[in-house]
Amino acid sequence: MSIPIDAEAMRCYGAAARAGPIARPERGDGTTAGRAAGTAAVSGEHSGPGKGAHMRIVAVHDGILPISSSIRNAWIDFNQMDCSIVAVVSDVVRDHKPLVGYGFNSNGRYGQQDILRRRMIPRLLAAAPGDLLDETGENLDPTKAWDVMMTNEKPGGHGERSVAVGVLDMALFDLAAKIASVPLARLVADRYGDGTPDARVAVYAAGGYYQPNKGVRELQDEMQGFLDAGYVRVKIKIGGAPLADDLARIEAVLHVLGGNGDALAVDANGRFDLDTALEYANALEPYGLAWYEEPSDPLDYATHAEIAARYRGALATGENLFSHQDARNLVRYGNVRSDRDIFQFDPALSYGLVEYRRTLAMLGEHGITPQRCIPHGGHQFAVHLAAALHLGGNESYPNEFFPAGGFADNAVIDNGLLALSSTPGIGIEEKAELYRAMRALHD
Amino acid sequence: MSIPIDAEAMRCYGAAARAGPIARPERGDGTTAGRAAGTAAVSGEHSGPGKGAHMRIVAVHDGILPISSSIRNAWIDFNQMDCSIVAVVSDVVRDHKPLVGYGFNSNGRYGQQDILRRRMIPRLLAAAPGDLLDETGENLDPTKAWDVMMTNEKPGGHGERSVAVGVLDMALFDLAAKIASVPLARLVADRYGDGTPDARVAVYAAGGYYQPNKGVRELQDEMQGFLDAGYVRVKIKIGGAPLADDLARIEAVLHVLGGNGDALAVDANGRFDLDTALEYANALEPYGLAWYEEPSDPLDYATHAEIAARYRGALATGENLFSHQDARNLVRYGNVRSDRDIFQFDPALSYGLVEYRRTLAMLGEHGITPQRCIPHGGHQFAVHLAAALHLGGNESYPNEFFPAGGFADNAVIDNGLLALSSTPGIGIEEKAELYRAMRALHD
Repeated sequence: MSIPIDAEAMRCYGAAARAGPIARPERGDGTTAGRAAGTAAVSGEHSGPGKGAHMRIVAVHDGILPISSSIRNAWIDFNQMDCSIVAVVSDVVRDHKPLVGYGFNSNGRYGQQDILRRRMIPRLLAAAPGDLLDETGENLDPTKAWDVMMTNEKPGGHGERSVAVGVLDMALFDLAAKIASVPLARLVADRYGDGTPDARVAVYAAGGYYQPNKGVRELQDEMQGFLDAGYVRVKIKIGGAPLADDLARIEAVLHVLGGNGDALAVDANGRFDLDTALEYANALEPYGLAWYEEPSDPLDYATHAEIAARYRGALATGENLFSHQDARNLVRYGNVRSDRDIFQFDPALSYGLVEYRRTLAMLGEHGITPQRCIPHGGHQFAVHLAAALHLGGNESYPNEFFPAGGFADNAVIDNGLLALSSTPGIGIEEKAELYRAMRALHD
Repeated sequence: MSIPIDAEAMRCYGAAARAGPIARPERGDGTTAGRAAGTAAVSGEHSGPGKGAHMRIVAVHDGILPISSSIRNAWIDFNQMDCSIVAVVSDVVRDHKPLVGYGFNSNGRYGQQDILRRRMIPRLLAAAPGDLLDETGENLDPTKAWDVMMTNEKPGGHGERSVAVGVLDMALFDLAAKIASVPLARLVADRYGDGTPDARVAVYAAGGYYQPNKGVRELQDEMQGFLDAGYVRVKIKIGGAPLADDLARIEAVLHVLGGNGDALAVDANGRFDLDTALEYANALEPYGLAWYEEPSDPLDYATHAEIAARYRGALATGENLFSHQDARNLVRYGNVRSDRDIFQFDPALSYGLVEYRRTLAMLGEHGITPQRCIPHGGHQFAVHLAAALHLGGNESYPNEFFPAGGFADNAVIDNGLLALSSTPGIGIEEKAELYRAMRALHD
């Protein structure tokens, strides 16, 4: 299958920046002149900045990638969904090629080219090398790059911008791990964790969307397919149909799951008001489900708190909170329960790993362990973070959001566990179609 | 003075949409074919859709407008700030020209071309006319247009997107008022208010930024200039200098103000942690200032609540909260005091008037009157809303954010009051440089 990446929307930053349709030369894009893509000195195997020299970012390319789908949840239709992709080209050469870091954003929030092109990428390229590097000068410190990207950004308003920064943060970490010649999980465990990444990560299969002509039988077939593929826990949507219909769907899926409620999660995508959320809560409780996800508006912490006071099972939320400040408000005001609830903040939509670590630290101050975190999105980046930081697992969309979402093409799920690969970086090179789109940005 | 609007960044939606650098024809932009700019039947004076016919939007044009400035607050430098501008062209003809609605976004959050071009504008143009119109079919109902623009948008994450929607909401209301041949304040008062807009709106002069080579004497001169221009209340920044220096600045300004603390507000731009905020609070309290603005992170309601428990004067905040849900969290958790505190939500950054009315309704449920609202931004749109909905006033930046910010070129401030003009719509036609930029979008 060929992915129609949008060639017209592709863009290189570097010396070519002045020519672009949105670039504003008067705003200083010219500071990047001379760092054009392809000007990196490609000479020698495993050459690099050398002793005492600093590695440099020589170009950042971006594009839009459709992740279209016919699916629909209780809130939106995904048939026009897309994401941003970026390639950060360094002057570090291995096997006669410059190392390149790749990033993309997770599903649900669209690509963010304008914020990338007019704010984040120019700031990165205008930075002095020392403002982006670790103490050795031979590798990136994405924490420092984060501060550079957020220069002249006001506080609050965490959405969209958080996606753009997340895309670049992912690419910078991919590049940093490639420079270190280790999988990202190893780099993150060494820099920020206990040095011992998990070898496998628990993943659950998210699906069960509402689709035209999809009845209970087709839903059961979809779930059986997940089990056949090696998953042991699945998730379906609720709230896009009347309660009675949703309960019939749940019971049909539980039949496929051998009646094991803990193998099924349900997701309302923030659609319910308090009364409806409680009506569902009462109906769901006897099933003993793995969790009841996003019953109410993600920012309506008071309603979430009331649901948590009434529903004894686990609640899950967080995929639509994009900063540690928003996450902190959930914890402060949402009546979350550290012994059961699930936190689904998605680093690829939320200012990246740099911000995710702030969120984990905040959770820790409130007695909530990383084990309670299962990121939204079903992407490779979060798998590495889950392994490195001992999160509770990761989402997976086996049938959706191709080609950005999902894991390596040859990934095997065994008893609900995904083994990490040993490829340096995130492993986007192991997803042929996504890698093809990424390479088209800079080749 | 000539404003360098970015011609390369200008864009027309209509039949030309397929040709653009970011447009994705496969996403349905082609639904607008045949509605190109200039195809409106320009015939006859004051012609319109006619009895039984529906008015239509025939094109939406957008561009980027620099609002550069050398100013700096406690958080960011504004020297690369810009905003989006849009022109919504209708098929309603008056004086042989189609009526056009104009919108722009307020300062501080940059232009939002990508969200406009790939999400909001295509949805508006793809809508059936009936999905945008009031019951007469002869004018727009921006409330319905809001739902169209927010189709396939997930809940939460209110930032950037809120700016894009705000720009279009402003243009739609400008156009609706022009179709009704009334100033926007009259339209809003008739549709949503008590039918009696205020003739004048209290405005205060915001300035007092930190700038290179700007000492206390220059600060005093700036403030005296505001008084000479007819203002009676001024605002200066704090938090960009040590407390002792800021107190010296405050006392110098109070000297210009004849010692009247109520004539001076101070703004920390969300910079302080709790300890610093309280240190300032203790030092500020004896001055009896008009208000102490945004002492802490806009989403850190708990810190705001602690400050409110200790500071007896008025606190002001809200310019960095972009939805009624975020505003509601401030009210729920921020220990706000309905008898003194000031709410500065900026409709031009926050999904427009449609959302602002939700916020006002929420405030009312908590016993907070419109009189407590003084919007951020210093733009004409908010002046009309202030007059129509009896807000407490409006900000003004006499020396900044030209040409988007500010009021009519011939506006007179008398005893701190700005008289509304009788021009149909917002009155952007009375700001020559802004109007020139707007006309360049579609002429």
